[in-house]
Amino acid sequence: MTQPNGAQAEIYLPSGFSFSSAAAGIKPSGRPDLALVECAAGTTAAAMFTTNRAAAAPVLVGREALGASRGLIRALVVNSGNANCATGAQGLRDCRRICREVSHGLGAQLNQVLPSSTGIIGSPLPREKILARISGLIAGQQSTVAAARRFAEAIMTTDKRPKLVSAEFAIGGRQARLLGIAKGSGMIHPQLATMLVYLFTDIAASPAELKRLLISVCDETFHCISVDGDTSTNDTVLLMASGRSNARLRNQRASGVFRRVLSKLCGELAEKIVRDGEGVEHMIRLSIAGAKNRDEALQVARTIAHSPLVKTAWAGADPNWGRILAAVGRSGVPVSADDISIFIGQQKVCDRGHAIPFDESAAHRHLSQPTCEVRVYLGRGRARLRFLTTDLTSEYVRINADYST
Amino acid sequence: MTQPNGAQAEIYLPSGFSFSSAAAGIKPSGRPDLALVECAAGTTAAAMFTTNRAAAAPVLVGREALGASRGLIRALVVNSGNANCATGAQGLRDCRRICREVSHGLGAQLNQVLPSSTGIIGSPLPREKILARISGLIAGQQSTVAAARRFAEAIMTTDKRPKLVSAEFAIGGRQARLLGIAKGSGMIHPQLATMLVYLFTDIAASPAELKRLLISVCDETFHCISVDGDTSTNDTVLLMASGRSNARLRNQRASGVFRRVLSKLCGELAEKIVRDGEGVEHMIRLSIAGAKNRDEALQVARTIAHSPLVKTAWAGADPNWGRILAAVGRSGVPVSADDISIFIGQQKVCDRGHAIPFDESAAHRHLSQPTCEVRVYLGRGRARLRFLTTDLTSEYVRINADYST
Repeated sequence: MTQPNGAQAEIYLPSGFSFSSAAAGIKPSGRPDLALVECAAGTTAAAMFTTNRAAAAPVLVGREALGASRGLIRALVVNSGNANCATGAQGLRDCRRICREVSHGLGAQLNQVLPSSTGIIGSPLPREKILARISGLIAGQQSTVAAARRFAEAIMTTDKRPKLVSAEFAIGGRQARLLGIAKGSGMIHPQLATMLVYLFTDIAASPAELKRLLISVCDETFHCISVDGDTSTNDTVLLMASGRSNARLRNQRASGVFRRVLSKLCGELAEKIVRDGEGVEHMIRLSIAGAKNRDEALQVARTIAHSPLVKTAWAGADPNWGRILAAVGRSGVPVSADDISIFIGQQKVCDRGHAIPFDESAAHRHLSQPTCEVRVYLGRGRARLRFLTTDLTSEYVRINADYST
Repeated sequence: MTQPNGAQAEIYLPSGFSFSSAAAGIKPSGRPDLALVECAAGTTAAAMFTTNRAAAAPVLVGREALGASRGLIRALVVNSGNANCATGAQGLRDCRRICREVSHGLGAQLNQVLPSSTGIIGSPLPREKILARISGLIAGQQSTVAAARRFAEAIMTTDKRPKLVSAEFAIGGRQARLLGIAKGSGMIHPQLATMLVYLFTDIAASPAELKRLLISVCDETFHCISVDGDTSTNDTVLLMASGRSNARLRNQRASGVFRRVLSKLCGELAEKIVRDGEGVEHMIRLSIAGAKNRDEALQVARTIAHSPLVKTAWAGADPNWGRILAAVGRSGVPVSADDISIFIGQQKVCDRGHAIPFDESAAHRHLSQPTCEVRVYLGRGRARLRFLTTDLTSEYVRINADYST
């Protein structure tokens, strides 16, 4: 069903979306930094925005717009190179001005244009550079895979590669497609690890259906990745449905098919985001089992995934399970140390809180791989969780400590 | 009143304590790794232990002993090089066996002997090596500054230098002394950043008085430092009062004098612990003001202090206040971004959530110093807090990623 994304993988393009992009001169490098998507009339949408209290202007404007339009969307305008965050009232005015220009150009309602920004914080948005490109973007739209790829490139900041995933699937005898495009650095880039995820599909679904599906899928994908625990001011996940395939979520079975595709693709994007992180040498598949409920499994996973001690041990492929045990112990979950077992790869390295003999060089070899498995059993219940995280390398520090301003 | 500690600083030795130390062969380096303190009969004590659920054997045994003795203590036995953590029932037996040997040797009650361990996790405590040295330690005790210094050296793990502070002060016309000895790495050493703090005084005070003072002083000193957020399995702060100066905490005034001395010395030890951290190049004095209450100020301070993004910016002396703003925004405190102002040194760099022009090279120069000041105003209330933390350097990662097992 799904094509793994690689440079050569086939991309399935859903009907009802056209893409364009440009180099507006926001990025000093001169690389593409502005992109537009036009959605067919009647396209429905649902979004998840950052919970950061210092949310950027486009998040505030986009949340308001989607509320006012009752989940209808006609266009998406994204710039990279500047986050339009900590820019005060002027930032809000700039953002609204750009949306207005797009709405005029497309003859769409203002509240059906959603903005996104990613890049440096606290620097005024170069509004005029953006406005000067809007008419060209509108004129240059294409419903092609190549244009979608250029969109994916234009929203990149320090990403090493564009991130696209797609799938074709059948619902009620009709073929439909889902295309996911994301940007984000697993480890944070020099300004902030903003994650932007756009999910385009040509199924037909109400905004409420989309919202329900998006919340449940985000819970098991984007909410289960962590690279450094810093929630960006601009994070956005947006799901758009054009309805152009005439595949409808008429019943639970249809809804289930779409949910599985959505979950698979979001999982793939989450993995791409983590793996593309700066300085990341090892991606860790962390499993927490034996929790009383999902929340406490998540709390344990996050405490382990945010521990500099644990992450630096992983950077050295060091099977130092004492650090993992200590992180579980301080997670706030009332675990009993005598119930905790830890596995590295297939090997048990800590049995009910006790050191046991294990093959250290095999564990070291396992942790030397690009993708490693670490499992923690809490012995408290039956809930389990999978979580994706990374090591913390000197390269990460070097990148983020560079004084570049 | 207080002497700053340096190699040459005068150390005030409280009456009623004698020290000895030895190289028992627990550390592969052959350096001193075992130490004993005998306390005069009638010495009272209060302790704070780690909140980590994977607490080590000596923490469990010590907490129980201090409860059973109702706050009386006759001896303290400390080893470095092995944490006796994740060692199960055998670890508890080994710990109790060592305490019993000390209690027999000194003719003291078993529950008046407190154990501490620091070092690697998950490795059996080399009990016999320790037992073989107990009688020698008991025979070799001295009430001298030199012996106290050797005690401070024997409890070190990856500390670069021993940490002693002391003061002489008058209560009710009587001279009394307080000596503080600590170990701990600001940034974590290859196994765990255990913090052990021993506070010896010759005032007379009940265990309940000591406990009350210790809790309140720890709140503003050891609880307000952070290097990486990893709470060790072995952390212990122990305050002991021999009563030998005959200075009594008879009234609030006397209590206030002692509290100030205790607070000052604990603050100095906290700073030594942070500054001695591995890989630390910059110590940051973080001030949070304008909070509704102390708890939310602490929550904001900890979120900033644990953010890899913020800490790596500090490593590069980068005045990137956007990362600080983003950390405040995700702290969980319901701040309004438009109320947040940030200062680097004396310069305001963010005014009510907005970028403002500032002298970037002056801010960079300020952050290039060994000690830097960062202030954050939340605009929510009148509570304020001071917090000590550090940068996150490549050297830290290098040290902690070394695969040494």
